Amino acid sequence: MCAVAANYDDALLERARRVRMVIMDCDGVLTDGKAIHVSTLGRLGRLLSIGCDALAFSVQDGSGIKYLQRSGIRTAILSGRDVGATYHRARVLGIEDVVTGAKVKLEGYEEICRRNELEDIEVAYVGDDLPDIPVMRRVGLAVAVANAVPDVIDHAHMVTQRSGGDGAVRELAEFILKAQGKWDAIMARYLE
Amino acid sequence: MCAVAANYDDALLERARRVRMVIMDCDGVLTDGKAIHVSTLGRLGRLLSIGCDALAFSVQDGSGIKYLQRSGIRTAILSGRDVGATYHRARVLGIEDVVTGAKVKLEGYEEICRRNELEDIEVAYVGDDLPDIPVMRRVGLAVAVANAVPDVIDHAHMVTQRSGGDGAVRELAEFILKAQGKWDAIMARYLE
Amino acid sequence: MCAVAANYDDALLERARRVRMVIMDCDGVLTDGKAIHVSTLGRLGRLLSIGCDALAFSVQDGSGIKYLQRSGIRTAILSGRDVGATYHRARVLGIEDVVTGAKVKLEGYEEICRRNELEDIEVAYVGDDLPDIPVMRRVGLAVAVANAVPDVIDHAHMVTQRSGGDGAVRELAEFILKAQGKWDAIMARYLE
Amino acid sequence: MCAVAANYDDALLERARRVRMVIMDCDGVLTDGKAIHVSTLGRLGRLLSIGCDALAFSVQDGSGIKYLQRSGIRTAILSGRDVGATYHRARVLGIEDVVTGAKVKLEGYEEICRRNELEDIEVAYVGDDLPDIPVMRRVGLAVAVANAVPDVIDHAHMVTQRSGGDGAVRELAEFILKAQGKWDAIMARYLE
Repeated sequence: MCAVAANYDDALLERARRVRMVIMDCDGVLTDGKAIHVSTLGRLGRLLSIGCDALAFSVQDGSGIKYLQRSGIRTAILSGRDVGATYHRARVLGIEDVVTGAKVKLEGYEEICRRNELEDIEVAYVGDDLPDIPVMRRVGLAVAVANAVPDVIDHAHMVTQRSGGDGAVRELAEFILKAQGKWDAIMARYLE
Repeated sequence: MCAVAANYDDALLERARRVRMVIMDCDGVLTDGKAIHVSTLGRLGRLLSIGCDALAFSVQDGSGIKYLQRSGIRTAILSGRDVGATYHRARVLGIEDVVTGAKVKLEGYEEICRRNELEDIEVAYVGDDLPDIPVMRRVGLAVAVANAVPDVIDHAHMVTQRSGGDGAVRELAEFILKAQGKWDAIMARYLE
Repeated sequence: MCAVAANYDDALLERARRVRMVIMDCDGVLTDGKAIHVSTLGRLGRLLSIGCDALAFSVQDGSGIKYLQRSGIRTAILSGRDVGATYHRARVLGIEDVVTGAKVKLEGYEEICRRNELEDIEVAYVGDDLPDIPVMRRVGLAVAVANAVPDVIDHAHMVTQRSGGDGAVRELAEFILKAQGKWDAIMARYLE
Repeated sequence: MCAVAANYDDALLERARRVRMVIMDCDGVLTDGKAIHVSTLGRLGRLLSIGCDALAFSVQDGSGIKYLQRSGIRTAILSGRDVGATYHRARVLGIEDVVTGAKVKLEGYEEICRRNELEDIEVAYVGDDLPDIPVMRRVGLAVAVANAVPDVIDHAHMVTQRSGGDGAVRELAEFILKAQGKWDAIMARYLE
């Protein structure tokens, strides 16, 4: 593996055809990798550990995830951080499986596969940073976002043109659905 | 229809001259398509579904919407999501009609036309994603923002140079007002 | 007036030398022109008009404003919108004069000049949108940010290379302080 | 000193090899230099000085800081502003030392060195604005982020390709760890 597919060759299309679940890292993949911390003003915020976390998701990614689900492809989030906004986003989009706070991502990955009765070859995984590599070495379709660190890009079958939080997941969803011949059915709903 | 007008030809100007209402999608058109979720810190935010939604609007778009209104052109928002910030923005700008949570946008569109006694040819609609296509196929002036997905651009009479949330609506407002010969009256207020 | 100075010619330097106060628009000048609305989740946010406004300021702009003040040049904000965050930012930076909610900016401008005993020629004003034009036509140094609308650029003596919220005000502060021969004293503090 | 190293020459690698602590400015280095102010809506926010501050950090920077710590290199934040979110971020990442509200950064720097028993030559410091210069003139490895003001770049041994808040600190972390021959041990954890 490990070679970056610049254009979508037959081997990559074959990988995409077998995907039954798309597992996504959150920070840097479903977002642009910014962790926004909100605190009360000035010195009060320094003493009290009160505040909020915010994440910025892409609505076009959200549509792509819905198109996958409508086409019978399951979706999951596998994140190393434990942020409430990740759970909220998963609820809004009806994402079937969510594992956060995963210190070792491979364990979270195996848990998701077991629960969903999946073989490695049936999974697409999208990542951007080193902890994603062990999972990317296992799955059938390993995807790096455009903003991934170089070592992650070295372990990807495919690199998206869009960055995380800016349509990378939407791009992947369209690619998989087109490879599986399911995109026309999605479009038909809007063209009748 | 369906051909993208790279430069503003006579047919496009004629479409713009007949516009009496501009209907805008929210996410990706009035914003850059980011859905910002705010949650309480850490595990608390995971258990409780408490939090906030945030959207980032463009103040230059806001001025453009005011210029349309001053010139007698009505404005509306037609959005598939139901977010409080959309209503707040509409109130601040005095946008005449708001329909959110529209599962099928064509129904929301027909409701707005009925309430405002409009023919299809008198409406400009601005969109960025697939659910916008059925409305774009009906209206007199179908506009895609620069950041629209390719299938939406294929259904537009005109593609803005600016992206959603970064002046796309302002650009359209100036284009319509110039086509209708109303821009000089707007400028006069600031040049006397 | 009205010609854009691409390079800093003698006439522009002479204008900068006479500046005793820098008046700044807020949205699009001290920020990138995004109005961020925060609302409670879902339908609750639709019914209740409860929420927050957020603005993103540049810390490098903040330093530039402090350097102006240290050098004896006064600073003010003149904004058409009335947002709490504008007042908060002004307090943090010790900005001497703030006028918001100014429907007609020329009135706010004349009020600031009266309070600070200033002639038009002693004022630099930075703007990005049409309501700024009447003030820009009066002041000694009219500045448009890089992201200003075309009609505003047409009325500027100078256009910054940086955009609003991304260092435009800092760039102007350094330009004025260098023109007045006061930059070396600022730098000396950090080089001793 | 003061010459910018465009490529990583031997002298720069030697500086990186001796680093035992990385001290980071916050605004513009760990963030993109935006100070986000959140206020209650409208006039209420004007009268009451109630609100929140928000900062946007990079999760890839966060990983880089963890890799430094795992490799025995200490980390610290030295910031001129006193914002709660800075402390929150430091807690989340386990950053060993935090000094904020430092009017004169050299004093904060000397305090950190004393507490951690460090010589100047053992410290890397990353900055973006004038107050960082006195510290940059002292440390063994002075780093400017890509978005630093020109006078700061003039005082840097090294300028990162990434901007603050967008991976600049991650880039520096990888550079130091590779110079010290510790990167392979980091990667091994993800390749076994």
